[in-house]
This record gives sequence, C-alpha cells and structure tokens, in this order.
Amino acid sequence: MTSKTETSAAPDAYAQLVSHARETGLFAGILGLLDWDERTKMPQAAGPHRADQIAFLAGQIHRRQTDPRLGELLGELAATDLAADPHSDAGANIRLLQRDYDKKTRLPQELVEELSRLSVLGQQVWSAARADDDFPRFLPVLEQTIALKRQEAAALGYDDTPYDALLDEYEPGESTANVARALGGLRDALAPLVEQIVGSQQGPSNEIMLRDFPKDAQEAFGIEAAAAIGFDFAAGRLDDTVHPFCATAGPRDVRLTTRYNERDFGDAFFSILHEAGHGLYEQGLLGEHCGLPIGEATSLGVHESQSRMWENQVGRSRAFWRFMTPKAQQHFPAALAGVSAEDMYRAVNTVAPSLIRVDADEVTYNLHICIRFDLEKQLIEGDLAARDLPEAWRAAYQRLLGVTPPNDAQGVLQDVHWSGGSFGYFPTYALGNLYAAQFFAQAARDLGDLDEQFARGEFQPLLDWLRTKIHRHGRRYSAAELAQRITGKPLSHDDWLAQNTAKYGELYQL
Amino acid sequence: MTSKTETSAAPDAYAQLVSHARETGLFAGILGLLDWDERTKMPQAAGPHRADQIAFLAGQIHRRQTDPRLGELLGELAATDLAADPHSDAGANIRLLQRDYDKKTRLPQELVEELSRLSVLGQQVWSAARADDDFPRFLPVLEQTIALKRQEAAALGYDDTPYDALLDEYEPGESTANVARALGGLRDALAPLVEQIVGSQQGPSNEIMLRDFPKDAQEAFGIEAAAAIGFDFAAGRLDDTVHPFCATAGPRDVRLTTRYNERDFGDAFFSILHEAGHGLYEQGLLGEHCGLPIGEATSLGVHESQSRMWENQVGRSRAFWRFMTPKAQQHFPAALAGVSAEDMYRAVNTVAPSLIRVDADEVTYNLHICIRFDLEKQLIEGDLAARDLPEAWRAAYQRLLGVTPPNDAQGVLQDVHWSGGSFGYFPTYALGNLYAAQFFAQAARDLGDLDEQFARGEFQPLLDWLRTKIHRHGRRYSAAELAQRITGKPLSHDDWLAQNTAKYGELYQL
Repeated sequence: MTSKTETSAAPDAYAQLVSHARETGLFAGILGLLDWDERTKMPQAAGPHRADQIAFLAGQIHRRQTDPRLGELLGELAATDLAADPHSDAGANIRLLQRDYDKKTRLPQELVEELSRLSVLGQQVWSAARADDDFPRFLPVLEQTIALKRQEAAALGYDDTPYDALLDEYEPGESTANVARALGGLRDALAPLVEQIVGSQQGPSNEIMLRDFPKDAQEAFGIEAAAAIGFDFAAGRLDDTVHPFCATAGPRDVRLTTRYNERDFGDAFFSILHEAGHGLYEQGLLGEHCGLPIGEATSLGVHESQSRMWENQVGRSRAFWRFMTPKAQQHFPAALAGVSAEDMYRAVNTVAPSLIRVDADEVTYNLHICIRFDLEKQLIEGDLAARDLPEAWRAAYQRLLGVTPPNDAQGVLQDVHWSGGSFGYFPTYALGNLYAAQFFAQAARDLGDLDEQFARGEFQPLLDWLRTKIHRHGRRYSAAELAQRITGKPLSHDDWLAQNTAKYGELYQL
Repeated sequence: MTSKTETSAAPDAYAQLVSHARETGLFAGILGLLDWDERTKMPQAAGPHRADQIAFLAGQIHRRQTDPRLGELLGELAATDLAADPHSDAGANIRLLQRDYDKKTRLPQELVEELSRLSVLGQQVWSAARADDDFPRFLPVLEQTIALKRQEAAALGYDDTPYDALLDEYEPGESTANVARALGGLRDALAPLVEQIVGSQQGPSNEIMLRDFPKDAQEAFGIEAAAAIGFDFAAGRLDDTVHPFCATAGPRDVRLTTRYNERDFGDAFFSILHEAGHGLYEQGLLGEHCGLPIGEATSLGVHESQSRMWENQVGRSRAFWRFMTPKAQQHFPAALAGVSAEDMYRAVNTVAPSLIRVDADEVTYNLHICIRFDLEKQLIEGDLAARDLPEAWRAAYQRLLGVTPPNDAQGVLQDVHWSGGSFGYFPTYALGNLYAAQFFAQAARDLGDLDEQFARGEFQPLLDWLRTKIHRHGRRYSAAELAQRITGKPLSHDDWLAQNTAKYGELYQL
C-alpha cells in the first residue's frame, strides 16, 4: 500500500529520475559526436586517444546506468500512480528505465569488461583475417566471443533460447521464434521469386547508373533529395565517410554520411536516402524528451524500417522518379541527357543475386539476412560449431542465392558484426524491410494515392504520418506494439511480398 | 618527518593522482572537440542543446578538479620525495595540481555559478548592444561583472592589487606591476615610432594583397605554408569558421580554423600562420603527459608568443617570402603575375593606425592592448567607473593612435572579452608579442643565420629549438622562468623594439 507520504514524494523522485536520465543523455549525445567525428573528420593520428576518450565516456555512461541511486529512485516510484499506466509519459519512462537498469545490472562487471576487450580485439583480428582471407586466424577469437555471448545470455536470462536474450538487445521484446516464423516465411516465398527474376530475359538494365557522375553534383543532388523528403539541414548535415551511417549528437543535431562512386550513381544516392530515413526518425523524436526512453528510437528494426521505406518504397518508386528525374538532369546534364523518368525507374530497380550483403538489391538482400540469422542462431544455440561456419555459409549461399563465394573474404568474413560480439543484430535488417512494407501499406490506405503525391514532390503527408504514428512515441511502444496499433496485425512478410511481387513481376515481366 | 610507511605509499598515491588528472584530461579534450564542432560544423539548430552539453561537461570537469579525493592525494604527497624537486616530472605535477586545486577550491560554488551565468548573459547583452551601438544597454551587466570579478579576486587572494589575482588566471605567476612596467615601456617607445611611420611618405603599399584570391587556392596555399613550417596535418586539420581559433581535442588532434576574404589575401593567410603557431605548441606538448600539468601549455602569453613568432618574425620576414613567393604564384597565377619576393615582403608589412584591434598591424597592435590593459586595470582597481569607459576609450585612442572611434560599436564594444568576464586576458596578447621577439632574438643567436634557413624553406631548426626550449616542458616552468632560462633576462620590450625599429625603419625609410 502506498502511504500518503510516499505518494507526495513521488513527483520529487520522478523529477530526480528524469534529471538523472537527461544527464546521461547529454553524455550519450556527446558520444554520438565523438563517434561521428572519428569516422568523418578526425586526423588519423588521433585514433588511439579517441579510443581512450570513447572508452572513458562509455564507462561513465555505464556507471550512471547502473548507479544504485537510479535503482532506489525506480524502487520508490514502482508502486506510485506515476507508474500505473505503462504507456503514459511517466509510466513508460519508469517502466523502460527499470527494464534497462535490470538488464545492465544483471551483467557482472567482469563480463562487461571482457566482452568489451574481446570486441576490440575481435574486430582487429577479423580485419586482418579478412584482408588475408584467413578464417582460421579469426576462428579462436570467434569461438571465445560465442562462449562469452552465451554467458551474457545466461546472465540476462531468457525463456526459450539464449538467442532470445541477445536479440532483445536490438529488438526489445521480440522473440527468436517469432523472427524465425517471419523470416522463414519470407525465405520460402522469396526463393521462387528470385529464381523467376534470374530466369527472366526481360529485365531492366542499370547501364544508366554506371555513367559519369561527378562527386560534387552527387552531393548537391543528394542534399536536394534528402531535403525534399523532409530532412532538416538546419538540424543536420551530410559528410563523407567510408561506411555510411547516421549519427545523432543531440535532438536537433542529426548527421548523415555517405561515400561517392563517380562511376555508380546508385551507391551514394540510395545510401543518402537510406541514412536520411534514419535521420528523419531521429529528427522526429521529441526533443523535450531527450535522454528519456520516450525520446529514443524503439528498436533497430523500426529504425531500419524508416531508412528502408524512404530508400525503397519511396526512393525506388516510379512516382519518385517522375518528380526527381528532371532535377537529376539539372545536376547531371551529360550523363542523363535524354533519359526518361521511366528509364530511371527501371535502372534503379535491377535484381541480381550476389555475394556481398551491402551491395545487394532490394529483393535478394533479405536472403543474405536469412542466411546470417540461421547461422548465428545455430552458433549461439550450439547447433553449429564455429569451425564449420565457412562450409555452412557456402552451402547456404549456393542453396538460397545460387552463388558460391570463391573465398572466405567474400563469404563468411565479409561483415564486421560477429567480430564485435553483435549477435542478434542481423535480423533487424530484415525486420526493417518487413516493417517498412507493412507500415507503408497502411500509410497508403490512410493517405490516399501516395504515388500521385510523390510525383508532385509531396512527401510531407507520409512524413507527418510517420511522425504521428511512430516517431513521436519514442520507446513508448515496442516494435510489435507499433505494428499491431498501426496496421492491426503482427509482424508479417505479406505486405513486403505483395509489393515486391507486383513491382518486380512487372519489371521482369514474370 | 616522513615515515617509512608514508614514503612507500607515495608511488601509489602519485599513480592515483596521475590517473585522476588523466581522466579529467580526457574530458578536457572532449570539451575541446565540442567547442571546435560548435564553431565549425554544428547545425545551427543544435545550439541550445550543445550549450547544455558543454555546461554539463564543464561542470563534471570542475567537480573533478575540486574533488576532495584529489585534495587528499595531494596532501599525502606534499611532504614526500616525489614532491621535493619542483621541476621534476612528479614534483611539477604535484606542485601545479596543488596550485590549481587551491585556486579552484577557494572560489565559493555560488560565485562560480553566478560568474558562469553572468558570462553567458553578458555575452548575449554585449552582442545585442554592439549590434545597436548601445553602450548604456551593456553598462548594467558590465558593472555587475566587474563587481563579481572583484569578489573573485578577493576570494582568490592577492598581494598588491585585485588585478593580480585575475591576471594570474591567464598568466600564472605574473604580476600586474611587472606587466605595467613592460607595457608602459613599450607604449612610451612605440608612440614616437608610430608617429614617424605615419609621417613617412615612403612606406610600402598593400595593393597586391587586395587583388582576387580564390578561396580554394587560399586554403591550399595556407595548408602548404602551415605544413612547411612544421604543422603535422596527420595530427591536425584546417577548417572554416567565423572567428579564427585553434582547438585541441587530444595530444595528436589539433585543429586550426580560419575565414577567407577573396579580396584580401592577408586575412586568411596570416591567421592560418598564427593559428598554426598555436597548433605547433599544442603538437609539441608531450602526448605521454596528456592531462598532466607538464603536458599543458604554460600560459596564454607563451602560447601567443608561438603564434606571433610564426606569424610575424617568420611569416612577415623577407626570407620567408623569398621561399614562399614562387609557391604563392603557383596558387595565384593571375593575382601574383610578375610580383617579386620583395614586392610580397613590402605588401605584407604595411602599418596604419586603425580603430579595430583584430585588424591591426604588427606595430600598432600593441597600442590597442596597452589601452585595454590600462582601462581594465583601472576598472578592477576602482579607479574608473564603468559608465566613464567610452569616454576614457576615445581619449586613449586619440592620444596613442591618433584616431577616434565614431561610435562605441567600433570603440569600447568591439571585443567580447569583458562581456564574458575575461579581465586580465588582454595583456597576454602583448606579452606574447614581447616573448616572441625575446625568444626569437635568442634563437637567432643560437641557430645562426635564420634568414638563410627560411629562404631555403628550412623551418625545422627553429621548430626543434622551440620544442626543446619551450614546448616539451609544458607547465614545468612559468613564462617568467622560461624567459630567464632561455634568454637570461626577464620579460622586456627591448628585443621587440629593436627588431621592429630596424624592420620598419628600413621599410618606411625613417
């Protein structure tokens, strides 16, 4: 029973809780800036000291997140009116800060440090092993990493499989069984579609994309396109990097990055749209909740749904290129002379099975993810030994994509994730694709003819819809709750499959 | 008496002290990055949140610097062998950390917060008052600031005048009397020199400087010049800003900034040399002492001596332009066609009394500082009322420079310093000029014909000399100690006057 004294003390405890979280959030934004700077501007020789700065700041954040005072405040608030409604501002913040605190404090300090140490070492070893196509060199550290991740899962606790505990880090509340169901269905339906596309003699060509596109014009056009879909450059910017990403240094400070290939227009352009999609989510979070759960993105899958929707459902649509082609021609008068909107639409939508995930097209990308999800699930559950991974990788690529990597560098060593201990991350890419299609289908039902709007350059209705339905809630609703609330059904591959079967059926005359 | 136990515990206490200071140093570098980013890259809308980040981080640093644990460690170490030699690594660190700790803890928390609050407010009010040429609007906040600075001086303690306590913040160990002596002598000798120059009909013209200099070429040439004098761009960079500065984000991360005027070559070029001079000092501090006093610059005056030496003694020398003119012509083939090294030398060395400090030439600059030093000393000592400041300013400019500001915006309101509470800062600019001349005269005695070296593009001997004599010591020696150790005499205006009388005597045929 809550006494009168306790109830009247609650607002004060909540104010302290908010203040504590906000200060941690200030550090988190600073960490975002350090990371952005490291990957865009930092002088090369500054690397070792920057690593010290980042480790120190991350340690300060971890100390704050496991601060016993935080636990006390949460304890004081647990049974109060403020916590009663789990989806009210205060209720959601208390519930989610408690969730984070429980998870963080469940991990022994020793394990945290060992995981952190092994993550740095693992990435170094992986980087060298990939360069030399030498999986055996990577194997011992991979085995150690898997063992530690299993320890981590045990410490965190789980219902069905240790993979649940790891997945939860990136996709809070999601279950391995549910992901396996969605991705399994997707994989089974995708395989015949890809087979048909590969067999088609009628597909589009990407020749237009491979002409001469000067870097400065690509940057200017990319900025124009990102601004057109609603990215606010007064509260953000675009810079060059090696591996494109989106960084947040504060509620009105969202930074896109890309890299340019002057002989392939699509590389930078779609990565800018993709990162701008992430950036629109970050800019759509409410600044007044900065540092609090309801001011943070709810999951990696939902984050990816935003980037994928702007990249694919919008940026690879016929209507988008109806609006954008004349603008593109102003930036690239030579390369795009005489090119029609339909030409552009076809050129940006070619499908071809390939070895490398990050270069994959919209259709085959998900198969790359299905392979990784299956393999990492088996690794964590003990059904696959790390030493057997290269062979399992090759077999899966041959089976699902019809291609076999000529070496491990272009195979099992291509991604950084496992070397840094990120198990459970990969499926969020595919969940993002499915959520993107599912949300987009609902938006089309709610907003009328989106194609007509896009063709006129009107992207604000879709953005406003996303802001209202998703962005402004932060972590108030989980990904699964959002899907149910917005689309009336749980995560499903139906909409993705329907959209892409129709689109590529027409393009490839299937 | 130090017992055996205490002595054997000392190394451990010292290790803890070093660790504490190094961690504070990590925060300080991060603060340097936040500040650099704010003034170069930050999206405009991010300003308010960045202010929160900076205030929070500065608060964390202040908390660490006044941490009672730090006081305890220093207390444990005070009487040990490690502290015995005040100029040994450990001895200097203990002595200077104790000095900093004493100063910081002498200030009541309330006063620190009020000064911080008033500094932000003061700069806002000043900015508006300057824009509207409205000194009366600035007056109340200036009066409050002066009152608080007098309280600060009282809390810090001083021997002769409250100005001593404030000066010590920027020029540790320096006295008002000594500065007054040096600047007074300089002022008395300068007035007739300036009068002669103004009266000369034979001076050089800066017409060459005012031709068409494209921004990109200025940047490329500025980078070439900064690299030529030894600035390491693997451990630094150059960016655009509004008010040029040099920021340090870590021992191998030193960032120069400038602004470009395509119709005045000198603006960006000499600001790049100037900031590169600061940057060379920062790059010359020993990275292994990062965060410790012996890894930090010893005073603003010595810092300014490095920027001024590379800007003036080197960058405005005949020999420098013998080396640089052909290179400049490659970058500016149109503007500099047919221009000789002697033409360049003369064009970059014109003297004309003016109203604005930051635009002043090498000779008259010091008079701007003498005026500010006299006035702020009187303000702090109570000999001048703030309301009488504009009139005193105009009188001083008329007396020393022969010019009278037509309004306060171009007069007493031109500098930001007082609005932010920086009293005691101005004289360090002139001290920098005097130290630059004094060190340079000694370097010329030690290194042989510097002009011949410069004309061949050999700047490394001078840089090595500065590294050995000044940079690598950090705060081990104060500015006054450095002057005595390196040049065998205390701070003096003799070398500055000798160098400039000779140089401008020839240029203006006096």
